[in-house]
Amino acid sequence: MLDEKQNSGLNFHVSVDCVVFGFEFGKLNVLLLERKMLFKGVEFKDLKLPGDLVRKDEDLDTAAARVLKELTGLDNIYLRQFAAIGTPDRLYRMERDMEWLRQIGHPEEVVVTVAYYSLINIDQDKINRFELQEDVKWHPVSQIKELAFDHMEIFNDALKALRDELRFNPIGFELLPSKFTLSQLQKLYEVILGSTLDKRNFRKKVSNMPYVIPINEKEKGVSHKPAQYYIFSKKVYEKTRKSSLDFFV
Amino acid sequence: MLDEKQNSGLNFHVSVDCVVFGFEFGKLNVLLLERKMLFKGVEFKDLKLPGDLVRKDEDLDTAAARVLKELTGLDNIYLRQFAAIGTPDRLYRMERDMEWLRQIGHPEEVVVTVAYYSLINIDQDKINRFELQEDVKWHPVSQIKELAFDHMEIFNDALKALRDELRFNPIGFELLPSKFTLSQLQKLYEVILGSTLDKRNFRKKVSNMPYVIPINEKEKGVSHKPAQYYIFSKKVYEKTRKSSLDFFV
Repeated sequence: MLDEKQNSGLNFHVSVDCVVFGFEFGKLNVLLLERKMLFKGVEFKDLKLPGDLVRKDEDLDTAAARVLKELTGLDNIYLRQFAAIGTPDRLYRMERDMEWLRQIGHPEEVVVTVAYYSLINIDQDKINRFELQEDVKWHPVSQIKELAFDHMEIFNDALKALRDELRFNPIGFELLPSKFTLSQLQKLYEVILGSTLDKRNFRKKVSNMPYVIPINEKEKGVSHKPAQYYIFSKKVYEKTRKSSLDFFV
Repeated sequence: MLDEKQNSGLNFHVSVDCVVFGFEFGKLNVLLLERKMLFKGVEFKDLKLPGDLVRKDEDLDTAAARVLKELTGLDNIYLRQFAAIGTPDRLYRMERDMEWLRQIGHPEEVVVTVAYYSLINIDQDKINRFELQEDVKWHPVSQIKELAFDHMEIFNDALKALRDELRFNPIGFELLPSKFTLSQLQKLYEVILGSTLDKRNFRKKVSNMPYVIPINEKEKGVSHKPAQYYIFSKKVYEKTRKSSLDFFV
């Protein structure tokens, strides 16, 4: 049965899909592409995840980085593969999806997709430097109810993978400006995890993290007491993190 | 560029590869398939991961479960997807791999593989019930130095993924018999993590785990003081595990 000869006539299409998260003004956002088409004679619009078919000469990570570069103009974005999905009917469950595929000339075949999530720091400095493709926009995560194809499942799996990773790795800092206040940091975690954290406990935890470092600068132009700015040091984190077994040690 | 039309002629092969771990007599083992061929006129043997091309009518998890069923006769094995790999030359780096592919009639095309790791409880009860395919054998993980294709990389990534998951999820119990001693449990963690754990600390941690439950039974026929048997209760684990943020709370 493990005879690869039997199956050698099989062909699949392989794509990458990217769930790009950004954090701004206390909200978690996701980059989505508007899909427009004539459907039953009427203009129809909905949203999909950005993605593309993988080219023969590139590996999967390269394809995902290419999609992100085309979307945002940015290189070196935090990118993490979290799933491969190959349910045979994944693109063909809804009439409007089949109609769209016909209109773009997509062959009716199984497309195995490899899903990535990505974290973008929507920094005031950076936002001027990156230009989104015209049909791509940030949408608040809490407002996403429906997407094309099986993209709603992929989006939900990405959120789950992001939450899991956030529990164990300091990836939250990828979503913050390079200098941030502890309130911003707490808000970020609360928004992604969907639950409120106790401020005192949170600050106590942070004070035990030698890689979250106060800098000689405070907020400016605020009506409340200006908050201290902090930076995250990846170098200190890598030196000090526990290499031991958290589950048992 | 997110125009899928341009690429619509592309075809890939998609496979699944399985890294199947089993724990026995204090050793972590992996199931490998022997590959035999004539290479430059001489019989040549080496080892590869079990795997197969995905069929058009099955999804990826189904394909991986099918491969495991064919290998071992077992259903319902713990199976976890951990990576998709599509580096274009991944099957074509070594002459002997290319020769083998020619001999089995495999077309020279890019094969994107989706990698799974799997945990099997090599229980005395079970081992009589499952029968391995003839060319498949358990090999101690510590002795694996080279595998066919890019399987050594996949194997190393699986080990890393297993270690990561072991730190945060109680998957170690999948590898143990249903009743086990605390020494067996500690040994399992030590072997997988590749480091020694302090016995007192370890037992203290375990005593705080309401889901590791002593039963009314001890070891028999041992020369040392018979050790207490324990079971793992998934139900109690799911009730009591922290749902909070470990990284910050």
